[in-house]
Amino acid sequence: MTQFDSQVGFAILRHCAPVLGLEPHTDPETYLARRTELGVEEVNRRLLTASGVEHFLVETGYRGEELLDPAGMSAASGKPADEIVRLEAVAEQVVAEGTDAAGFSARFEAALWERSRTARGLKSVVAYRYGLDVDPEPPTAEEVTAAAGRWLRTGRSRVEDPVLLRHLIWKGVERGLPLQFHTGFGDPDVDLRRSDPLLLRGLIERVEPSGVPVMLLHCYPFHRNAGFLAQVYPNVHFDVGLGVNHTGARSAAIVAESLELAPFSKILFSSDAWGPAELHHLGALLWRRAMIRVLSGFVAEGEWSRAQAVRVAAMVGAENARRVYRLEKPRVTARR
Amino acid sequence: MTQFDSQVGFAILRHCAPVLGLEPHTDPETYLARRTELGVEEVNRRLLTASGVEHFLVETGYRGEELLDPAGMSAASGKPADEIVRLEAVAEQVVAEGTDAAGFSARFEAALWERSRTARGLKSVVAYRYGLDVDPEPPTAEEVTAAAGRWLRTGRSRVEDPVLLRHLIWKGVERGLPLQFHTGFGDPDVDLRRSDPLLLRGLIERVEPSGVPVMLLHCYPFHRNAGFLAQVYPNVHFDVGLGVNHTGARSAAIVAESLELAPFSKILFSSDAWGPAELHHLGALLWRRAMIRVLSGFVAEGEWSRAQAVRVAAMVGAENARRVYRLEKPRVTARR
Amino acid sequence: MTQFDSQVGFAILRHCAPVLGLEPHTDPETYLARRTELGVEEVNRRLLTASGVEHFLVETGYRGEELLDPAGMSAASGKPADEIVRLEAVAEQVVAEGTDAAGFSARFEAALWERSRTARGLKSVVAYRYGLDVDPEPPTAEEVTAAAGRWLRTGRSRVEDPVLLRHLIWKGVERGLPLQFHTGFGDPDVDLRRSDPLLLRGLIERVEPSGVPVMLLHCYPFHRNAGFLAQVYPNVHFDVGLGVNHTGARSAAIVAESLELAPFSKILFSSDAWGPAELHHLGALLWRRAMIRVLSGFVAEGEWSRAQAVRVAAMVGAENARRVYRLEKPRVTARR
Repeated sequence: MTQFDSQVGFAILRHCAPVLGLEPHTDPETYLARRTELGVEEVNRRLLTASGVEHFLVETGYRGEELLDPAGMSAASGKPADEIVRLEAVAEQVVAEGTDAAGFSARFEAALWERSRTARGLKSVVAYRYGLDVDPEPPTAEEVTAAAGRWLRTGRSRVEDPVLLRHLIWKGVERGLPLQFHTGFGDPDVDLRRSDPLLLRGLIERVEPSGVPVMLLHCYPFHRNAGFLAQVYPNVHFDVGLGVNHTGARSAAIVAESLELAPFSKILFSSDAWGPAELHHLGALLWRRAMIRVLSGFVAEGEWSRAQAVRVAAMVGAENARRVYRLEKPRVTARR
Repeated sequence: MTQFDSQVGFAILRHCAPVLGLEPHTDPETYLARRTELGVEEVNRRLLTASGVEHFLVETGYRGEELLDPAGMSAASGKPADEIVRLEAVAEQVVAEGTDAAGFSARFEAALWERSRTARGLKSVVAYRYGLDVDPEPPTAEEVTAAAGRWLRTGRSRVEDPVLLRHLIWKGVERGLPLQFHTGFGDPDVDLRRSDPLLLRGLIERVEPSGVPVMLLHCYPFHRNAGFLAQVYPNVHFDVGLGVNHTGARSAAIVAESLELAPFSKILFSSDAWGPAELHHLGALLWRRAMIRVLSGFVAEGEWSRAQAVRVAAMVGAENARRVYRLEKPRVTARR
Repeated sequence: MTQFDSQVGFAILRHCAPVLGLEPHTDPETYLARRTELGVEEVNRRLLTASGVEHFLVETGYRGEELLDPAGMSAASGKPADEIVRLEAVAEQVVAEGTDAAGFSARFEAALWERSRTARGLKSVVAYRYGLDVDPEPPTAEEVTAAAGRWLRTGRSRVEDPVLLRHLIWKGVERGLPLQFHTGFGDPDVDLRRSDPLLLRGLIERVEPSGVPVMLLHCYPFHRNAGFLAQVYPNVHFDVGLGVNHTGARSAAIVAESLELAPFSKILFSSDAWGPAELHHLGALLWRRAMIRVLSGFVAEGEWSRAQAVRVAAMVGAENARRVYRLEKPRVTARR
């Protein structure tokens, strides 16, 4: 056994190997040797270019210093790349730079507006830090100050207090950009039972009057629940990003299940690529293969017209994101 | 984007357009214009007739005054149509007509028996009014009177007190007709987390000795859970009604998933049509297409015989409903 | 209607009938008559041999006296058969043989080691006796003695106290054999909501340092949740045993859904056969048919190579079990 003995591993050997000049279904050793031989820069360039992504939205809040930032992504791919700002990372930066409890809220707000000046959206990882079953109400100023004091006294860099996590979300809502939530599966520290997007119902209803789009990311295995939320709440959108990459040959089934209740204007493509450039290529390629397979099936069975299939693919693949994130023109351009 | 950009919208343009004399996959504007041109009565007649439904069971408790009643349905379709009585609507009628708290229970019981004299079943929408996680025990007479008093003092027309909702259910059980529960997805006011039919376990077990059939409606995305309940409890039946209409080209997948654990005698067809006549036609047509596709697949793969497939289609499509709802002969006939 | 009107019934008539010398899709009466005519011993021999199972792991804790024990299974099948010991059965045996509360823990531990001397694994049915939402912490010695006293005073043979159920699990972990958990659907006394394997998260994390493999059995309809656990926790494995038999013609869909997130080294075949020999044959045959259909699909769609498909089938079908349960050589041999 190797770590490649999984759907995502087989998908890399199948679809990324040819981009590196190897036969499909090569063995892991050959693949890794070739990767080393080409070097990171060339591998990134090849895989990012092959992905066919026209505009990247890059979330920079998790180990951002080890990864390409939007400018770096743009340089490597030759396409525009914009930023999604992680709320928790801003709060942790504020604390790292020094604040007292009473000053936390104002400093966070200022930092958030400054950090997100050119951003296209914000992101909450409350699913990782507490759970989506967080109280949906905004906390009071007194509660925030008290919670900030508790946090500062722990000396820990990581924000995990549910009062503060709620405060970050509500300050994010005030900021007015599309607000992403990690939902569904992810790294081992997620408690999957507490990452069902249905748990966000109270928050979605309270955010709705603000007009801020709520973007549910990944959602697997709760993507049908996400489809329900996208059907009944005008401000809810979702994708099955992470689920496409990690289910490989089964990703068409996941994409098909995401095309049930939700209006087609509320479903978005996402690669959820993080880290290796393989995930950018795979996320896009597997999604395209899945859409072709699923929508062609609808057409072959006489349920959809070909024109409808083409139109929905364009909506989910690009137009919905362009509209919700206002991607008319890139805000960040390559450094070189 | 239009409101037709969804599975149910595409299904209307595909399958209802030809019934109105248009090409399949027509555009929404043409469809709506043609609908207006034909007039409501002709549209209803065409779509209800095309549905192929042989016997309608019509629930009249939600905005019933705006919709065709069973006699109207029978007139428009040329088929028998019987009534399902919504428990909450009867309670609200009792209060609208005037009662005090102490008299509520007796008046409700009398009204229920009178209203359901020719009915084929009762329905609870506790999923909308509270949640399926309601206490499964019947409340005491004192609790009911106290809760009725609380309700009357609010001056609200809508019954939402869980004590009263439980009381309605248990009076419904005493009435002895098949008892439907809305489960799974529906309008935005349903909390999907609290509409999982598994939450009815305690109630199902307590109802079982009465012999009253418990009918789980819709169930999506919890239809596999419903299949489990139908397998282990003799009195439980289910359908995937609403889920068929709203998933359109994906409805075969939902129907397939409903054909797993449950004995075939416990699964029923339902259109869950409410409102536009399109949903009656679609609900029936998509279900038939789904059954043909799924059962033909079982036959083609060598798992089922053709005779078994035909027999199961007849059971789910008609015989199970005729048996459980005792539809030997119609009780309500057309007014004209 | 007959009790054969279900997926498992149709599968018996399809796949077991030929083993008994009948046409596929025979009728239930013919099938049952032929079964009587051949006699139990011959039916067992035919169906167990036809199953193609190379090594049986037999759990003996539920009505074991009515069933073939490992030696009997080995004799009937001509293959090695080893035992899985049910923790709760050992505790109940200890009480049946007589103990006081203070002596329970030591007697249980001694009995567990003696009973499992040649066993390949242990099993917990806490899902049936309480729920998987049991407190994950080991109870203290005082708590165990107090709980044992409560149990003894009830005079009941069945262990249901969550303190004792936890104690059994933790003594099982100390024993060091792979530890199976019933999860997902099963007999009517399981509360399906409380048998979601995600509820075991706390226990899995606490067991992880011991290196004891946690084996999640059945999992349906939560098999995607099980796949997530198998992906993120090194000690978690799972199967969809019971789900394959009981979904018959739909079992390929279940198997496909089990091949999403989890590394292929963490997925195991299981028939979950209990009772009639039909379930042994069906469990193995339907699983093979499902794997062939699903993996051939991956190959036909160009996602996997043929060699990868063959390798994964061998891993899931045999190698993973041989490795985790250390089945190099049989421990129990036939009596004759």
